[in-house]
Amino acid sequence: MDYAQVQKPTLILNQARCQANINRMAAKARANRVRFRPHFKTHQSAGVGEWFRAAGVDAITVSSVDMATYFAGHGWKDITLAFSLNWRQMADIDVLAQRVRLGLLFESLESAAFASERLSHPVDGWIKVDVGAHRTGIPVENTAEVIALAGALDRSGIIHLKGLLTHAGHTYHAAGRAAIAAIYRDSVEHLKTLAGRLAQAGYPGVELSVGDTPACSLVEDFLGVDEIRPGNFVFYDAMQWQIGSCREEDIALAVACPVVARHAGRREVVLYGGAIHLSKELMMMDDHPSYGLAAYPTLDGWSHFLSGAYVSSLSQEHGLVKVSQADFEQIHVGDLLMVIPVHSCLAVDCLATYLTLSGQQIDSLKSR
Amino acid sequence: MDYAQVQKPTLILNQARCQANINRMAAKARANRVRFRPHFKTHQSAGVGEWFRAAGVDAITVSSVDMATYFAGHGWKDITLAFSLNWRQMADIDVLAQRVRLGLLFESLESAAFASERLSHPVDGWIKVDVGAHRTGIPVENTAEVIALAGALDRSGIIHLKGLLTHAGHTYHAAGRAAIAAIYRDSVEHLKTLAGRLAQAGYPGVELSVGDTPACSLVEDFLGVDEIRPGNFVFYDAMQWQIGSCREEDIALAVACPVVARHAGRREVVLYGGAIHLSKELMMMDDHPSYGLAAYPTLDGWSHFLSGAYVSSLSQEHGLVKVSQADFEQIHVGDLLMVIPVHSCLAVDCLATYLTLSGQQIDSLKSR
Repeated sequence: MDYAQVQKPTLILNQARCQANINRMAAKARANRVRFRPHFKTHQSAGVGEWFRAAGVDAITVSSVDMATYFAGHGWKDITLAFSLNWRQMADIDVLAQRVRLGLLFESLESAAFASERLSHPVDGWIKVDVGAHRTGIPVENTAEVIALAGALDRSGIIHLKGLLTHAGHTYHAAGRAAIAAIYRDSVEHLKTLAGRLAQAGYPGVELSVGDTPACSLVEDFLGVDEIRPGNFVFYDAMQWQIGSCREEDIALAVACPVVARHAGRREVVLYGGAIHLSKELMMMDDHPSYGLAAYPTLDGWSHFLSGAYVSSLSQEHGLVKVSQADFEQIHVGDLLMVIPVHSCLAVDCLATYLTLSGQQIDSLKSR
Repeated sequence: MDYAQVQKPTLILNQARCQANINRMAAKARANRVRFRPHFKTHQSAGVGEWFRAAGVDAITVSSVDMATYFAGHGWKDITLAFSLNWRQMADIDVLAQRVRLGLLFESLESAAFASERLSHPVDGWIKVDVGAHRTGIPVENTAEVIALAGALDRSGIIHLKGLLTHAGHTYHAAGRAAIAAIYRDSVEHLKTLAGRLAQAGYPGVELSVGDTPACSLVEDFLGVDEIRPGNFVFYDAMQWQIGSCREEDIALAVACPVVARHAGRREVVLYGGAIHLSKELMMMDDHPSYGLAAYPTLDGWSHFLSGAYVSSLSQEHGLVKVSQADFEQIHVGDLLMVIPVHSCLAVDCLATYLTLSGQQIDSLKSR
């Protein structure tokens, strides 16, 4: 990689790693005979989307109407809008329902009624179930509530009751492979039980859709599930590496940041690269918060993580990186340092435009 | 305000409050006979910039070359780029130096030498001094280092030694007016002492430039200072309110977010409004982290903060807001809830485009 062209914080994409991540997950889905409906909120890019298409993917997940509209405009015909129904965008949602096969999430009778009255084109309806992440969705143990909602969707005439959908986001806080696998198995067991109750109530054959990157990366057997929707795995990041979802060499994204100052007493270097480039997502490393890991730029991308180095503080445009004495002596003002973001989805949303290692620019929804 | 048009997370700007904040700070600077060089990184908007111009401002501060170029294109002729010199943008910086009166920050001999060799147009050189924030700059007690740098700038022939500049960012972590005022007084005393040493060393008459919003809001007497550079005060936010820099009724910015779900058991409402709209900046409230405060939309903007309510969790697009039982019963799916961001600079960078209470759209550098 010729980094001479990089003047300011820049999203660097290792295309080979990214495509390997895509192909690995696609192969795993095929081997399990489950539908692979990747979440495109991580990359938000028509260009990266083409690599999924090349891997045989034709159904996707997004998290906003804007993203659905963007990908519909790039030829995607089967899109699940994995976000609780936003009533205020109902007109745009109905336009989407005409253009593509659209999946919508429902978690209340009132939203089901609202959509039923306003949709003029059929959609798939997924019941959003909370298996423990406690973000949103109907708690998986609330069987009666789920059955009532299934009935409302079924009677709507325009929303086809498609299945149960969950995002077990609590795997992000799990420690290690065994804990993540246990959350996954527990979630699927609960969903299967709930699907059984729905069948008894007259709604047989609902599908099960599950989604988080940790479980989809670490679990090999998706028995009983119809669809997986991981997103972050396309790039991974420092947080996924920390919880064990990926190897260091699977991480496909880094932010190249110019070094603008050095402070020997504190063994800190100051980067042009702050909260508006990396986001303020943090993770704990030992006893301190970290806003990213650091590496050197190399001819083929970037080096191994600098041992013990981490982004210790971020303001709007500045980042402080703590490094070892040996690394401190290697790093000069005017150099680039590569930051492995804590959360790639957010760094992508901040920076929007990718530069691949071969120097190609790849745009996303938010590129200007 | 007619909020019917708001369909997704939207930056709502109370223009009257914003202009009052601008006029109050401009009047304070005039009364103190100091130059008012507001930091435009908070709003990043040519439109908001015009309100400063109307208040008599003709000199500004920015934090990136992109911002400097944008505001130069909107008629600003006197711009300080308050960021450690980024060597990799030296060519663009030299172009700026031809277009406007440009101030640059220096904190090392190597950056002074680098710029001296490459600038073909004169600039003002500010020595960046660290008075305790420990982000970057030469520690204020390192007199010899500052004198050496002053000499290098002075001998460069192209960089005019203008003064000492500091950002006492540690006021953001101070508790209350007295603590903030103490940090301010201490910083200025140190800067004055340093300026005295510079005069003894043959560099008399250097200016002093100070900048943070807490001190500029709470201190009345800027004796001995030549220039103030606050930025955040243009809007303020939940963090500034918490540390006492502003009153609730001075906050000029909120993010209108659609309510998409409700969870009675947890007294939480789910917003379409997440980390990519508000940023993940957090502040501690009692014993819990908060990503924002909440208010109701009203005809004239938004209500008082909902008592005890706070944004308890953010993911990419979702926000969870904890509310009282009484408020929970008032809030319905499809409503808007107003979130007062923890850090307005970052929320502005996320959302980019403002909607004023009279329904006018105001663009910023990052508007698409």
